[in-house]
Parts: sequence; structure tokens; C-alpha cells
Amino acid sequence: MSAGADPGGAAAGAAATFSSRWLETPAHVTERAGDLPAGFRASGVAAGLKPSGSRDVALLVSDSPDTVSAARFTRSGVLAAPVILCQKRVRLDAIRAVVVNSGNANAATGNRGLEDAARMQGAAAMAAGMREDQVAVASTGVIGVPLDTREVIKGIAAARPQLRAGGAEDFSEAIRTTDKFAKDIAVDVELPSGTVRLTAQAKGAGMISPSFATMLCFVQTDAAVSPETADLLLGVCVKRSFDRVSVDGQLSTNDTAILMCSGTSGVAIAPESEDELRFGEALDWALRRLALAIVRDGEGSKRIGRVLVRAGDEELAARVGRAVANSPLVKAALHGGDPNWGRIAQAVGGAVWDQPVAPDIWIEDVQVCAGGVGVPFDGLSLGDEVEYTVALGGDVEAEVFFSDLSHEYVSINADYTT
Amino acid sequence: MSAGADPGGAAAGAAATFSSRWLETPAHVTERAGDLPAGFRASGVAAGLKPSGSRDVALLVSDSPDTVSAARFTRSGVLAAPVILCQKRVRLDAIRAVVVNSGNANAATGNRGLEDAARMQGAAAMAAGMREDQVAVASTGVIGVPLDTREVIKGIAAARPQLRAGGAEDFSEAIRTTDKFAKDIAVDVELPSGTVRLTAQAKGAGMISPSFATMLCFVQTDAAVSPETADLLLGVCVKRSFDRVSVDGQLSTNDTAILMCSGTSGVAIAPESEDELRFGEALDWALRRLALAIVRDGEGSKRIGRVLVRAGDEELAARVGRAVANSPLVKAALHGGDPNWGRIAQAVGGAVWDQPVAPDIWIEDVQVCAGGVGVPFDGLSLGDEVEYTVALGGDVEAEVFFSDLSHEYVSINADYTT
Repeated sequence: MSAGADPGGAAAGAAATFSSRWLETPAHVTERAGDLPAGFRASGVAAGLKPSGSRDVALLVSDSPDTVSAARFTRSGVLAAPVILCQKRVRLDAIRAVVVNSGNANAATGNRGLEDAARMQGAAAMAAGMREDQVAVASTGVIGVPLDTREVIKGIAAARPQLRAGGAEDFSEAIRTTDKFAKDIAVDVELPSGTVRLTAQAKGAGMISPSFATMLCFVQTDAAVSPETADLLLGVCVKRSFDRVSVDGQLSTNDTAILMCSGTSGVAIAPESEDELRFGEALDWALRRLALAIVRDGEGSKRIGRVLVRAGDEELAARVGRAVANSPLVKAALHGGDPNWGRIAQAVGGAVWDQPVAPDIWIEDVQVCAGGVGVPFDGLSLGDEVEYTVALGGDVEAEVFFSDLSHEYVSINADYTT
Repeated sequence: MSAGADPGGAAAGAAATFSSRWLETPAHVTERAGDLPAGFRASGVAAGLKPSGSRDVALLVSDSPDTVSAARFTRSGVLAAPVILCQKRVRLDAIRAVVVNSGNANAATGNRGLEDAARMQGAAAMAAGMREDQVAVASTGVIGVPLDTREVIKGIAAARPQLRAGGAEDFSEAIRTTDKFAKDIAVDVELPSGTVRLTAQAKGAGMISPSFATMLCFVQTDAAVSPETADLLLGVCVKRSFDRVSVDGQLSTNDTAILMCSGTSGVAIAPESEDELRFGEALDWALRRLALAIVRDGEGSKRIGRVLVRAGDEELAARVGRAVANSPLVKAALHGGDPNWGRIAQAVGGAVWDQPVAPDIWIEDVQVCAGGVGVPFDGLSLGDEVEYTVALGGDVEAEVFFSDLSHEYVSINADYTT
């Protein structure tokens, strides 16, 4: 928890895990541990859903009635109950509270699941003193098991009196499942019109995907943002972050990202202003950092990779990038630090299907393939972060970050429910 | 080698590996070890391409000038030189000879690779005494390394005097790379118009995919078949066999399947006749058996799976089947014998993308999910072959066979070239 009270301990560890050569903190973004943005309070409690007895119910509220929000959800055809509820029964541009449980995904639970999600929403609305359609619900954990809403409601009741500006750490703790480290961010963002605060908490199971590799991310700011701008910024930044990571190429039923803007700083972000540009840069940096942390948090993960694809159009560049990032052959080679570029070429060929390509390929700064033909190179020694570049002709770029494929991934995923 | 001289030893082992509850030998198909169909001769020699000194150059010829053929190739955008050569410079409906090398895929080798493939073709045409455009070329092995054609040509010269009707075993041996067992078939097929012989040799790297998981398959028969019928039958049967297996979801640069029909039996297969139906059933059985053997031949593979998807149209059924079969989560659960049906649901949801589905799911005969909602079930004990059924509404079926994901897969693929 980077915003925690122990900057030398866990926070330092998390910061080290987050650092990446692929991510430069913008000059106008300053990390500062501490409270949530003005107007926000959060808490997290143990309600008995996790067998371990860890925190598993999280609550976050904005005290500002004018809070503006935006949301993005998984595009899976199999949606968890809380996702369906949010899409149908929540004013997604005016979310004022979020209630989350871990330990149970409330997915593949049918009508009973929808009712359970609605019960969570109702209890949280009651606790936060706001309308139900302003309360978003998210769940993560095992699937196909009915949710014990009695426990969740007791948890919400316990979480309510603990809501506080310094509660982000407890909130973060309560949304985790198999994450080895908390993934959150607390920064001040200097804009031409003034300084705003930006905090975010994410959870992502990384390579370990017990049943579902759910990704949840909640972002808070005290900037004043219009619903249209919030939606635009979140959409663009999610596309460049969580949409650009591959752990195992599997789409979750529960993925949820919510941006809430309380406006309490008095700093307004006007459309197409320098403020919007700078705020967008900060949000982009924050989400990419959290996405990279998810990739890094793979059990047994030794290395992470970035593949940068240049092509004639973005769809092609992204498709090829995902194919490389999802290839178990590429992932296994990354794990072993093996500069086996033939697997990159093969994944590229598989992605373009029926259309001849002659890629240029680099591993780090060394060109290993030119126009589809191998280039002799001397031994390449690969570090913790490995960069692959694929040029297909054209200059539209897409990048995808990915984790490696380890023995531990197999061990953990071979015996999860038994 | 099922056509070998040692029915009690290696052949029995291979036969045991081939047996599957998903494959029933048609009543009119009888396994019989022995010679290639009349008119065919084959051989395989060691030319020094494989460091192990094993056989690595294979030659197969049909002595009948009226031989009819059909071929299918990988649809990868990155094609190996021999595939490009076959597509551009071979009369694919009149192939009379096949030359294959293992130990080098001649892929990502550019113009030099095309010239090397042409040299192989020229040497084989000379050795077989036939036109160059009747000689197909195939390669498998490491990629990005120039082919030593001098060694290959010496191999072709050595293979020529060894061509014999009983040479299928040597041929099979010479096209293998990491295959743990030979994959071939020798059967007599009883048709209304008479008995024909059908033999086939395949190689497939299964889960081990050093650089490329190349699949090669060569089929010979002495039936008299028109080019149109040969093309139709091979197309349909490849689609139901090699197109329906997933080892690691990776498309090779070198995949090649060739059917050659010498016509020397005098039994003609007329279009839309009972002969065509029966012959098609035999070819279908043969290719499915070889495809299943490829899935079974994964290093560390403990279990193989079949997913049968029922949907409104075949494209959707096949897409969902591939998504399930390619999912590392599903594969890892299969490896561990874990009936974790949530991963099936998740893979289904990821495949349909933006379109709600509520699947019914069975593992073996036990329904575990109904209309997208989990169904309680008692402990399911999974055997060597695990059957998954997914019903999405509609009655068009597609099946995909797949191997599991093992520690050995990671070990082998993490350190292949280093």
C-alpha cells in the first residue's frame, strides 16, 4: 500500500515492484502517501467470506452530491451478477459509492446472484445514505457459489462506521484475492488551474487465476470533471492500460473499472484544455502503472515483456501484439530468458492468417529478423523486463505487456478447486 | 510404427497410444501392417541434419504417371519456403513425389530459403525421374537457420536406391522431430467396388513445440480418384481432424497435408457414390486418429480433452470450442484432473465477446452448469480422456481435441534455443 503509514516497509516494497523502465512518472505528478482526495472516505473489514479471515468487504463513498463518474466493464459474454446490476441499475455517470466483496465472484449464479447483488447494493445505499442507483457493486473470488449476503450485509454494517479519508489501505486490502502485493496509487497532480489529488486501488490476480482472473480498479479524484470528459478519459486510459496487458489471455466475467470525481478541489477540467491534457496524462500513468503491477504479480513470474507492434492500422497492430503476448511459446521462452525470436515470427504469422507478412523483429535493441529473414546475432542476455519490437510496415503503434509462463502457473491452476 | 515388422513391440505400443473412446474404427476398415499401396515406394535416410544422427531426409514416390493428388497448407501469414514453393511451383493435383527433411524448417530464410527449397525439389525430381512440378517439398525443424542443401541432396541420392514398397517406416522415422512415437496408419478399406489400401504418415510435435509445432501428414492410396474428389475429401477430412486439435493454439509456418492416389488398384471412386462415402469415412478416421495421436504426444501430457460445442452455427461452435481448448486455465485444470467448470464458462464468455450467453455445461455425463448457473455435483473423478460439452442453444456441433498444460511444457519451451 503506497499510501500507507509505513513508507519504509510495505510501501517501499510495493514501490520497488512498481518501478519499470516502461513507465516514466510525468513531471507534474508527485507521489504522496496519505488521504483519499477531499470528499472521499473508505474502509474495509473482515466479514467471513474469505476462509483466511482477511478483510473481504470494502466500502467507498463520496460525500459530494455532485460526484461525477464513469465506468468500464468486461466484454465477456458471461457476465457476473454485479456487472449486470451495474450496467442495468446504476447511473454510471453519477456513482457516489462502491461496495466490493472478495472471496466470491457472484458469477454463474443466475437470478439468485442478481438478487444478491441487489441486496448488497441496497445495504450499501442504506449505510452510505444515498440512492441505490448511485451505488456500484463489484465482486471477486470463486465462481458458481451462491453469495452469503447475510455475511456481506454484516460486513457493510461494520464498514460504515470505519469510513475515513485514510481508509484506502483497508479498502485495498479487502478487494484483494490472490494478489501478492497491494496495487494502489496516491498522487498529487499539478494542473495549470491548480493541484488535484488522484488515488486508485486495483486488484488483479496476475498469472494466478483461480477460476477467474478478475481485474478491479477504482479511481478517485477531487477534480471537477464533466460526465462526458470522465467517460472519455477513462475510456482512453483503460484502452491503453488494462486492455493492453496479457496474463493468460483470458477475459474475466467480473472486470470493472470506475472513476469517481468529487469536484471538491474546485479545480475544473474543461474539455480540450491544458488541464484536461495534464490530468489525462496523470490518469494514463496511474492506470498503466497499475496494469503493469498486475502483470508483475504473477506467481512464479520471473520476467515481464513488452511487445511493441508497428503496423498500418491500430486494429492490426493490437491484434498482432495480443497474439505475441498470449502465445504460450513466447511466454515460456520469456520465462527461460531464451531469445527465441522464431516464436515471435510464428505468433505474428498466426495472427495475420492468410495474409503474407515479412516482419522486422528486434529483441531489446538487437535486430533478429529483417523482412521475415533471420539476422545472425550474438548471445542476448535478457533481464527482468524484455522488450520485443515487431514492424510490419506502417507507423501506427500498439503495445501489449505480458507475464511469462512458469511452472508455478501450472501447479496453481492444475489443482485449484480440488 | 503400426506398419512395422514387429507387431508385438513398438507397433503394439503405438496402437495403445492411438486408442481412444472418441474414435471407432469403421467396420469396412481393417488395420494391416505391410507395404504401401500399390505403386508407391518410400525411404528415409540420415543425411546429417539432425545432430543426433537419426534419419532426416525422406523420399516418397508414386510410379503411376496418372497419380492424382490434393494438398492443404498452413494459413499462417509467415510461410516457410517449402510451403511457398509448393503453392507456387507444384501441380498440386498431380503430385507424384514428396521430399521431406527434418532438423531444419527452412522458415524465415528469405530468398535463399526459396532457392534451397527449389534445389531440394530439383534433386528429388532427378532422383525420382519425374518433372519438378510434380515434386512436393516439406521441411520441419529449427527455423531461421539456412538449410544445408548439400547434405539434403546427398540424402536424396542415398534415399533413392532404398525406395521400396515397405519403406514407410523409414520414411516416418525421417520426418519426425520431437515426436515420442511414430504416427502412421496402414489399412485395407473395403468398398462396394473392391478393396483399396490406405496408408498415412504424420508428424506433430504435440505440446513440445521447439520453435514451431509443425504438423506434416502424407496419405497414399491405390484408389482411383479424380482431382476434384481428392481435393474435396482431403479438405473435409483436414477440417475435421488437424483443424480441430489444439496443442497450444499456435499456428505453424510449415503445416502440410498431401493426399496421393495412384489409381493402381483399378477401384475407381465415383463422385457421390457409395464408394466415395465409404472411402471418405476411412480417410476421416485415419486423419482423426493421426490428429488425436498428435494431441496425445505432448511431453508431460497426462490427459487429453474433447470439447463438444452445440450452437446455432458452425462458426460460433468452432470458435467457442477453440477458445476452450486453447485456454491455459482449462488446460491446466485438465492436467490436474480438476473439474473446474468455471474456467469453461469463462472461456466461453471470452469467445463470444459482447454477446450474452448462458451456457449449459457438462463434464463427462454430469451437468455442472445450467443456463449459466452452477449446478451442485458430487466429486467427479477424471480419467485420461475428459469430455466437456457446452450447449449454447442450437444444434450445430463442433468438437476440438486438446492436450493439457504441464510443467514439462514449460521446462521444454523455456530453454529451447539456449
